[in-house]
Amino acid sequence: MSSTKSIRLAVIEGDGIGHEVVPEGLKVLRAALAPEGVEVETTDFDLGAGRWRRTGETLTDEDMEQLAGHDAILLGAVGDPDIPSGILERGMLLKLRFGFDHFVNLRPTRLAPGVTSPLADPGDVDFVVVREGTEGPYVGNGGTMREGTDLEVATEVSLNTAVGVERVVRFAFDQAEARRSKLTLVHKHNVLVNAGHLWRRIVEKVGAEHPDVAVDYLHVDAATIFLVTDPARFDVIVTDNLFGDILTDLAGAISGGIGLAASGNINPTGAFPSMFEPVHGSAPDIAGQQKADPTATVLSVALLLEQQGFADAAARVRAAVDEDLSRRAELGARTTTQIGDALVAGVSGAAAVREG
Amino acid sequence: MSSTKSIRLAVIEGDGIGHEVVPEGLKVLRAALAPEGVEVETTDFDLGAGRWRRTGETLTDEDMEQLAGHDAILLGAVGDPDIPSGILERGMLLKLRFGFDHFVNLRPTRLAPGVTSPLADPGDVDFVVVREGTEGPYVGNGGTMREGTDLEVATEVSLNTAVGVERVVRFAFDQAEARRSKLTLVHKHNVLVNAGHLWRRIVEKVGAEHPDVAVDYLHVDAATIFLVTDPARFDVIVTDNLFGDILTDLAGAISGGIGLAASGNINPTGAFPSMFEPVHGSAPDIAGQQKADPTATVLSVALLLEQQGFADAAARVRAAVDEDLSRRAELGARTTTQIGDALVAGVSGAAAVREG
Ligand SMILES: CC(C)[C@H](C(=O)O)[C@@H](O)C(=O)O
Ligand SMILES: CC(C)[C@H](C(=O)O)[C@@H](O)C(=O)O
Repeated sequence: MSSTKSIRLAVIEGDGIGHEVVPEGLKVLRAALAPEGVEVETTDFDLGAGRWRRTGETLTDEDMEQLAGHDAILLGAVGDPDIPSGILERGMLLKLRFGFDHFVNLRPTRLAPGVTSPLADPGDVDFVVVREGTEGPYVGNGGTMREGTDLEVATEVSLNTAVGVERVVRFAFDQAEARRSKLTLVHKHNVLVNAGHLWRRIVEKVGAEHPDVAVDYLHVDAATIFLVTDPARFDVIVTDNLFGDILTDLAGAISGGIGLAASGNINPTGAFPSMFEPVHGSAPDIAGQQKADPTATVLSVALLLEQQGFADAAARVRAAVDEDLSRRAELGARTTTQIGDALVAGVSGAAAVREG
Repeated sequence: MSSTKSIRLAVIEGDGIGHEVVPEGLKVLRAALAPEGVEVETTDFDLGAGRWRRTGETLTDEDMEQLAGHDAILLGAVGDPDIPSGILERGMLLKLRFGFDHFVNLRPTRLAPGVTSPLADPGDVDFVVVREGTEGPYVGNGGTMREGTDLEVATEVSLNTAVGVERVVRFAFDQAEARRSKLTLVHKHNVLVNAGHLWRRIVEKVGAEHPDVAVDYLHVDAATIFLVTDPARFDVIVTDNLFGDILTDLAGAISGGIGLAASGNINPTGAFPSMFEPVHGSAPDIAGQQKADPTATVLSVALLLEQQGFADAAARVRAAVDEDLSRRAELGARTTTQIGDALVAGVSGAAAVREG
């Protein structure tokens, strides 16, 4: 895609602070691509709580078709306390991830200079979680029998396939090769023996093709311990959909909060557009008040740039974010837009950072 | 059971440091019960890695029958790197929990005075996790098809019943009544909609009978965030088997390490003996070196005393542990036995604590 002179971007602001952080992300995206002479053509998609309330629709086949015609998707956040739980998550967010076969859910964690961690002595935190995105307990396979009675039985089935595990494990090894050559498989194979041993066997098999990558294994419960006692031990974590969900919120928390955590739902084959979104939710409590930090969205834009082949532009975005984070104490409280403006200025190489 | 003059205790030292921490736990148990004139009759059970290596047996029907004839079980730890993953966990530990219908897995977390947390500002950490013990993804329901081929499919089925959820939720509300009257349900009902909504409905129903208990809900991913940013917000957490496994390791880590984390696998009906065990594993790397901290086992003994109706004795054990923990910095490094001796002295009210 680096050969085109424009990126066709589908934009889903979603709900709550999604409406505030996405415009900042777009500003930064455009500023980062300007030196390359690449334009960004956006199409807005009205998806989320508002649309559902008005129409009862979450994500139609037509939406999916239109989205599919884009190079990438930028998503803010969806969710609203009024909407019954599961409707938007299963009906929209997961439908996008599954429908576009986003088998890699890439979530980098880095404690940037100047950012405070709740850990007393976090050390050098810099790892990525490669979370499987299309299998496991997220597949929506399960049901309820005799609902609402004393005899109710409810099931959730975790489905795991060799193909599904192998493709994400391969991606994770490639990440490790490009980083510090260390990969940690996280699962719970002493209890979830079927899925766990499938993951283990595949990591062993693919690992044999990467003798330079040091591989270890942690049960998910033990992984949470290390994330608070020695997070610097991690380089690449590869894990299933549910464990990845849990570990990345924890990873976000120890590295400055999920206000800074970015994610990419990636289909590395390019068959469908990949989707980039901050890990945080729609935060209805602070929505519309210009209090949201757009940094997670901007870092998601960096992942988008990388995936679209603009590594230099991605590096410029990250440098601007680092610069901004390192000066937060001195800059004081800023609005969502002010942070976005500062990042645009940083990306553009201008020194015009507003003093707080 | 408080009317009997002896406790018939089944003792499973297990593997690794289990052989070192359990004797200390027993010493403290006896010292704590001495003032009540209650004796402890123990039966040792040879279970774990050694037995499996010699005989190929994990836990026979006969073992189960003999164990069932006891008032309670004290377990050290099982596991050995030589034994294929899952054998002892599924074949012994989970077989005990499921066979004796230990539907409450009770795991208190408290940051004792003098204990260091990896969190910079942990606040007042004092909560219990009531983990369901006989359902969820732990039931061992699932399988593997076309194992070892590119077409492999592996499944894990989480089974959840209204009866199973309600009994543990009732126990959790009783805990909340006896504590600070706050209960947090942790699940992932926006994705695991079947199991999640069952849990939610039952917490609502039982909650209506406990109007004085404040109830809230967190997705499991968000719960990990609060465990590192504001653990003082928790009083009672009720959750499923897998989420409880993950959260309690994290809870142990933030409150001084799983070397201090106790657990009770409880059948509140008394139909079968309850089982008490430290949360930590067999730690083969330090086994046989008198390096293990017996405190988690001793705190598990306190849970055992409480469950057997000896609340005063349990309080004496906890006071001795607190006293010992508060003096750790000054006491320096001690052996497993020395810590056990100090706790016995503390429980016996003697002041004979060795200076390090
Ligand atoms: C909103 C929810 C469905 C989602 C998930 O569980 O994947 C979120 O927690 C995330 O991590 O992106
Ligand atoms: C050893 C393992 C089966 C066990 C569990 O997962 O329950 C352990 O992690 C625990 O928390 O007691």
